[in-house]
Amino acid sequence: MSHIPAPAAIGDKLAEVDTPALVLDLDAFDANLNAVHHHVLERAVRLRAHGKAHKCSAIGLRQVAAGAIGLCCQKVGEAEVFVQAGIGDVLVSNVIVGLPKARRLAALARTARVGVCVDSALQVEQIAQAAREHQVSVDVLIEIDVGMGRCGVLDEAEAQALATLIASHAPALKLRGLQAYHGRAQHMRTTAEQAVAIGKAAARAARMASALRDAGHRVEEITGGGTGTYPYEIASGVYTEVQPGSYVLMDGDYARNQPDPDSPSLAQALGLLCSVITVRDTHAVLDGGLKTFAVDSGLPQPQLRGWSTRGLSDEHMVIEPAGNAESLQVGQKIRVIPGHCDPTVNLHDWIVAVRGNRVEQVWPVDARGALF
Amino acid sequence: MSHIPAPAAIGDKLAEVDTPALVLDLDAFDANLNAVHHHVLERAVRLRAHGKAHKCSAIGLRQVAAGAIGLCCQKVGEAEVFVQAGIGDVLVSNVIVGLPKARRLAALARTARVGVCVDSALQVEQIAQAAREHQVSVDVLIEIDVGMGRCGVLDEAEAQALATLIASHAPALKLRGLQAYHGRAQHMRTTAEQAVAIGKAAARAARMASALRDAGHRVEEITGGGTGTYPYEIASGVYTEVQPGSYVLMDGDYARNQPDPDSPSLAQALGLLCSVITVRDTHAVLDGGLKTFAVDSGLPQPQLRGWSTRGLSDEHMVIEPAGNAESLQVGQKIRVIPGHCDPTVNLHDWIVAVRGNRVEQVWPVDARGALF
Repeated sequence: MSHIPAPAAIGDKLAEVDTPALVLDLDAFDANLNAVHHHVLERAVRLRAHGKAHKCSAIGLRQVAAGAIGLCCQKVGEAEVFVQAGIGDVLVSNVIVGLPKARRLAALARTARVGVCVDSALQVEQIAQAAREHQVSVDVLIEIDVGMGRCGVLDEAEAQALATLIASHAPALKLRGLQAYHGRAQHMRTTAEQAVAIGKAAARAARMASALRDAGHRVEEITGGGTGTYPYEIASGVYTEVQPGSYVLMDGDYARNQPDPDSPSLAQALGLLCSVITVRDTHAVLDGGLKTFAVDSGLPQPQLRGWSTRGLSDEHMVIEPAGNAESLQVGQKIRVIPGHCDPTVNLHDWIVAVRGNRVEQVWPVDARGALF
Repeated sequence: MSHIPAPAAIGDKLAEVDTPALVLDLDAFDANLNAVHHHVLERAVRLRAHGKAHKCSAIGLRQVAAGAIGLCCQKVGEAEVFVQAGIGDVLVSNVIVGLPKARRLAALARTARVGVCVDSALQVEQIAQAAREHQVSVDVLIEIDVGMGRCGVLDEAEAQALATLIASHAPALKLRGLQAYHGRAQHMRTTAEQAVAIGKAAARAARMASALRDAGHRVEEITGGGTGTYPYEIASGVYTEVQPGSYVLMDGDYARNQPDPDSPSLAQALGLLCSVITVRDTHAVLDGGLKTFAVDSGLPQPQLRGWSTRGLSDEHMVIEPAGNAESLQVGQKIRVIPGHCDPTVNLHDWIVAVRGNRVEQVWPVDARGALF
């Protein structure tokens, strides 16, 4: 595991956790896990929890124990960590390129059910070659662009050509279905915008599936959907599987989404514990900066009456007081909510899982740094 | 070391490096190292290379071999990694709080010369207690605010009170001098702005040193200055030591600074190698995102004629073509320049050091994740 020491030990009081540290509130985590799994599973849709959010096999195993069919992730390196930890069904919900990655993926298919996405012929050829070398079968999903403007095929002819190519490589490759994830929709602020975006995504996925079925291909799975929109993918009747990840953690960006009264409300489970290192009349400084918090989706915010974030540098976060600000002391520990959970967790080697005032678990972020 | 496998092996061709990967051009690295060390050392000022930029003891050892008196860093955990790697003189150029951190720092003082900054009495008391427990002497520098609006004392009376407190803890503590770093000035765009900012910083440091000397304290060291401004700290005649770090790597943000004709020009040594995973008419997608690049100081830019960066998500970078764009193929590997080197390096476990077309070294980023 990591050679970086953990900031806490099981049984420590919260106040003893060294800083800065990722701290997960287990009561909120459990509530989010139960609420989302119940919502998805009672609607007879599969839940494939997204491991890119937490990069932590201890969390992944809990998601599977709570009814997830398996995990998805974005990198072969993450899949290696999850399969080694005992997750039996892992989908790389991303396209990969290069024979070395294809070979590592195929090697995993000896011990787990493994899937991967494609959107071009070269990827198909490389995965097929690797699967034949390892004498395994790898499941392939055709990624379709449902509004992201990123990866994925756009028209039916492209999808059909890829499906035909995949079929030509049977049994090394097996077409499982379509990856139809709309990442941008996760962060649309109103439920109306989200419903429209996912309605279009589902319609496009349904058209693609139809075209493939008309050409004689089986399309068992249509998968996609994140924490922001998964109720809409489920409601569409098109998706067979959803891929939420952030729901067990949550962040400042998701908190800005309009709540949907028909879906479970989710608590802020993830926080960062930071220490006050300097107090001045005009500001105070916390011991977490750009190497502690990702800032791509807004600045982290201290949970402290009357204080807001002025800015971050590499190792420091400067906060400033309003008129009603509570007084601060050097050495005091403060909970801070990150703007964006996924890349924030990715900065840390350990998740300190706390119940009430006690450290109950200390989990390695064992897929952190698995970039390729 | 890290359990994450390295993306390359010594002797590999550049084209064989798996992606995304940090790639360091050793010819540019050597040229930057030699030019800056020559500039500083011939002016009889000490160079303390900042390890927070690279978090890599292999690079730190090369900086010491090239005349650096030692390293500085921002975290006790970084100091632990550097001392263990054989760096004999390490300054934590930051204030720290909490007895656990103070004790770990004091433990290092058994095998290395160790310094740390303070700006409040609690920090002094904690470090003194830890130094007595470990029966060592720890060097202390009073951090002064020279224009950052972050940590550091602002007036002479505060500095004198801290110096008196430090003196009362002799021999456990020894006042070494002043930490007078102006981080914001590193990124001011014109040499005129930088010269003015560092002129003011040096004047304030000189006044503080004078006040302390008048009160009977020794002030041997006035240290500060980064890659953007170190020639001005040297020229001031006030600073005895400078702390550049990024100079061996460089990034897009530093490249936007107006060059100073009297100082060494620095080459872009650090890059990221990424693969093209998707090509569409309107855009292409690279396999590095927010977990590969820090975006706090501008988006990374592909080194590719006619292509610019549209945006990043967690695992993807979307680039778009202008009229003169060269054609791209899925699987092609592209060099990308990060906006901000320090937090970008912090996302990676390995630096692939390349000379020409060959991997010459693969260095662990062994202090990555040392957050506390």
